[in-house]
Amino acid sequence: MDNTDQIFLKNCWYVAAWDHELIDGRKLARTILEKPVVLFRGESGKYVALDDRCCHRGAPLSMGRIEGDCLRCMYHGMKYDSSGACIEVPGQERIPKTLKVHSYPVEERGHLLWIWMGDPALADPELIVDYPPLHDPEWRGLPAYLHYDANWLLIVDNLSDLAHLAFVHTNTLGGSEEYAYKSKPPKVERLEKGFRLERWHRNSEPPPYLKKVIPPSDHELRVDRRNCVTMYIPGIFLMETMFVPAGSGKENGDLEGVRQFRNSQYMTPETRSTTHFFWNYLHNFDIDNPNIAISLRDSLIEGFHEDKAIIEAQQVLLDRDPSFRMRTLEADVALTHFRQTLKKCISEENEGGPSSSITSAVG
Amino acid sequence: MDNTDQIFLKNCWYVAAWDHELIDGRKLARTILEKPVVLFRGESGKYVALDDRCCHRGAPLSMGRIEGDCLRCMYHGMKYDSSGACIEVPGQERIPKTLKVHSYPVEERGHLLWIWMGDPALADPELIVDYPPLHDPEWRGLPAYLHYDANWLLIVDNLSDLAHLAFVHTNTLGGSEEYAYKSKPPKVERLEKGFRLERWHRNSEPPPYLKKVIPPSDHELRVDRRNCVTMYIPGIFLMETMFVPAGSGKENGDLEGVRQFRNSQYMTPETRSTTHFFWNYLHNFDIDNPNIAISLRDSLIEGFHEDKAIIEAQQVLLDRDPSFRMRTLEADVALTHFRQTLKKCISEENEGGPSSSITSAVG
Amino acid sequence: MDNTDQIFLKNCWYVAAWDHELIDGRKLARTILEKPVVLFRGESGKYVALDDRCCHRGAPLSMGRIEGDCLRCMYHGMKYDSSGACIEVPGQERIPKTLKVHSYPVEERGHLLWIWMGDPALADPELIVDYPPLHDPEWRGLPAYLHYDANWLLIVDNLSDLAHLAFVHTNTLGGSEEYAYKSKPPKVERLEKGFRLERWHRNSEPPPYLKKVIPPSDHELRVDRRNCVTMYIPGIFLMETMFVPAGSGKENGDLEGVRQFRNSQYMTPETRSTTHFFWNYLHNFDIDNPNIAISLRDSLIEGFHEDKAIIEAQQVLLDRDPSFRMRTLEADVALTHFRQTLKKCISEENEGGPSSSITSAVG
Repeated sequence: MDNTDQIFLKNCWYVAAWDHELIDGRKLARTILEKPVVLFRGESGKYVALDDRCCHRGAPLSMGRIEGDCLRCMYHGMKYDSSGACIEVPGQERIPKTLKVHSYPVEERGHLLWIWMGDPALADPELIVDYPPLHDPEWRGLPAYLHYDANWLLIVDNLSDLAHLAFVHTNTLGGSEEYAYKSKPPKVERLEKGFRLERWHRNSEPPPYLKKVIPPSDHELRVDRRNCVTMYIPGIFLMETMFVPAGSGKENGDLEGVRQFRNSQYMTPETRSTTHFFWNYLHNFDIDNPNIAISLRDSLIEGFHEDKAIIEAQQVLLDRDPSFRMRTLEADVALTHFRQTLKKCISEENEGGPSSSITSAVG
Repeated sequence: MDNTDQIFLKNCWYVAAWDHELIDGRKLARTILEKPVVLFRGESGKYVALDDRCCHRGAPLSMGRIEGDCLRCMYHGMKYDSSGACIEVPGQERIPKTLKVHSYPVEERGHLLWIWMGDPALADPELIVDYPPLHDPEWRGLPAYLHYDANWLLIVDNLSDLAHLAFVHTNTLGGSEEYAYKSKPPKVERLEKGFRLERWHRNSEPPPYLKKVIPPSDHELRVDRRNCVTMYIPGIFLMETMFVPAGSGKENGDLEGVRQFRNSQYMTPETRSTTHFFWNYLHNFDIDNPNIAISLRDSLIEGFHEDKAIIEAQQVLLDRDPSFRMRTLEADVALTHFRQTLKKCISEENEGGPSSSITSAVG
Repeated sequence: MDNTDQIFLKNCWYVAAWDHELIDGRKLARTILEKPVVLFRGESGKYVALDDRCCHRGAPLSMGRIEGDCLRCMYHGMKYDSSGACIEVPGQERIPKTLKVHSYPVEERGHLLWIWMGDPALADPELIVDYPPLHDPEWRGLPAYLHYDANWLLIVDNLSDLAHLAFVHTNTLGGSEEYAYKSKPPKVERLEKGFRLERWHRNSEPPPYLKKVIPPSDHELRVDRRNCVTMYIPGIFLMETMFVPAGSGKENGDLEGVRQFRNSQYMTPETRSTTHFFWNYLHNFDIDNPNIAISLRDSLIEGFHEDKAIIEAQQVLLDRDPSFRMRTLEADVALTHFRQTLKKCISEENEGGPSSSITSAVG
């Protein structure tokens, strides 16, 4: 037990990094759920995550040296294997078993490195929410990362109500304020570990980010826009987006002329007030034109900076006045369910109840 | 009740801004008494001050959009009228009365916008300390602003003992160290809500800031310098200054050859350790020469930066050691009366006593 | 008693400054044991250390003016003599005895200014640990200073186990990782107020910093390297280093061809998490070549920045998790003794026991 137990769910998988962040022998120092972690790829190809703090005097192991799948602290030379056990102390013969650091389970899926911050005995790789488009050659995209000075749930909130597209992203990802008025979601499906919702914006203008990746001749066409969102605990956002010629009903039949996207976003708490945000926005058309993925990545960066400005401003205001109580709108059904469910999971985890082994993360 | 109630007097008028700060549709985000406030001028010309925090998810309304006299939050599009009531939620038909933010009374006087942070029912505009030179065409000056990283009472202290002119402002506003030794104030008049004092420095050299706005031929003349100060709660400093030819006694008769200034300074707590400082230093001679006002503004900026250096250094030292107890000098009569009076007003306000409606701010 | 009493030993001498820091009338503002101190040299040549906080309104005296051996506060002009007594208040005739600031005993030894932060009545100059090479013309070096964002004991720890030379300073002060494996110290001598240890690295390559100050023709010679360390409370590190032709045994006889260094380092707490670090690394060969001292100073700056990177990273990690408990290695005998001894001295000081007058700082 420590003072983060009431804040974070521990026994679940979090995205720790993109695999490309560990190329060339990099020792990545990354704080996750307020714990200092060092991530590296051993010389055998194995991914390793250890406490980024030597058990001796507390020096960061990320300032150390990779030796095989081991890591040597470069303060007094203590060498740790991938299980976290100290296996060498220069100048000392006997090595007590107490000389060790925590080793976190790590798994790679679709170029994402997932980490388990809770009890390692419960770290079942089957619980990882794999997203097939990330390793399907029919989908193309660029992995990206953004750091937020905000609690991860404020980003979950943001993604739980797409009405914000209308006001925050009018000229980038949204396209018009009409989106907020006309695209009310038909229903929100409550899942055991999250929610699912679908939102249609019929007969709309293609939004600016779409225009950048379609031929100019298509810019004037009207489209039916469909966003279908699934959000899972602890902060996994998956969205299918399609733009269908307006009124064609093509979503139900052949998809000729339909443009589709697959979007995955991962919110991993760095601390209670800062977040690692990973995403990839993939497309399956004009797949041989590399500029489409680049354009989409850049559009998303532009859009996410619009979110970041408002979300970080929220965090500042929330920090300044802990007595502030948010008021709920009708559109908050999804985020309210998510927050309540997460709270329940955290409670159960602390009481040693069912959530301490999440048997079906994907509801 | 919140944790600022013991620190700030709420039921009184504070200067929130100069009116020129709200031209061109600016939404001014300004923290006052540790509350986030957004100030704007509606399209009807009305001044409005609202909580700078949407009641929904806490986004800043200062990132919003002025529509008529209303303000729309640009996160999910909630629209607030000037009373703080939410009058539109895009995509939602019924709007509960609980969707609202606080609206602060605001009044303009002499280009200053005054705000009432306490109970709006007590916000009597008659209590505003209007300063006629600010809207009298016979007086000319330039409004100015400075931000202090210091509690506002340290600035009140500073202004309560003009002896500091001698040491802090020797080469700018003061003119000599002699001022501290020779210009002892005849008496301090205790007011119900502040104090009044007068200080003569007879037969002195014109101080550097005065020399910049008078002809070189007058630089060698000796002057009798009179400063007459009134300070009101919560932090309103008004000063009449005149320079009379030394020994002429002109202060009692015709004012030919006498140079006069009117100086108003307003200390508004941003937080308990930072302050908004507004001022205008006006003159009534050579009124058609605009460079005099510019020179005086620049001299005051120079002088106030001298104060700011020492006052912010005080704040750092006070923050570091809350056990430090200041020692009182004889010259501290005025500041001691002011601090005691303010403390009494705050106590009474918290007990719901007489100060909760200040009937005569100007004693 | 204040909240630093459990952290710092008060009744002992600390290095406050190098004497060259006070030339040209400088008023040095330096925080020592979390107290603001102003140090200056009066016009008589006397060194003075006062509270850097006027007793009146808390303005820093380091913004004041030296007058003789006195210091005048430049806020309202109060003048303090070197005992800390206020001897003038402009505009006030009677000066109460309560108008005063604390005056700290200061003594100069070997260009170091030592300060006594505890009870002045106990400040016996005989307790100062004088280091003769600092004022012996046979030794030459350059005094230097570094600021650490780390608790001083982390630097004491660092210097208590020279094995770190092998890993932190491989290419600067150390020379090889072999040092950690082959130079195990024969024994640590526990002193009443510190420890002494000796460490030989036989038949080794000259380390990089040594190569820079010896002729190229000597770079290939093997040496026996001897480090002999003494550490005293509160944080005084003295080290004799010699490089003897390998196997020659010259350390016992004539020192022809032996290169020697004298190194003194002083860790003075600025706060519980920041440190003033003073040092001089002296040599006694080629004494007329000034570039040797410059090279050694630069090599030490380079090496100390290697320490600083790792020690400041430790401090960040320790601050983040106060529950972390360091694990002890066999090589930690010296640092463990030092920390236990210091802890005992602090306890005794707070109980008014024997340590409140340290009778033999040098054990």
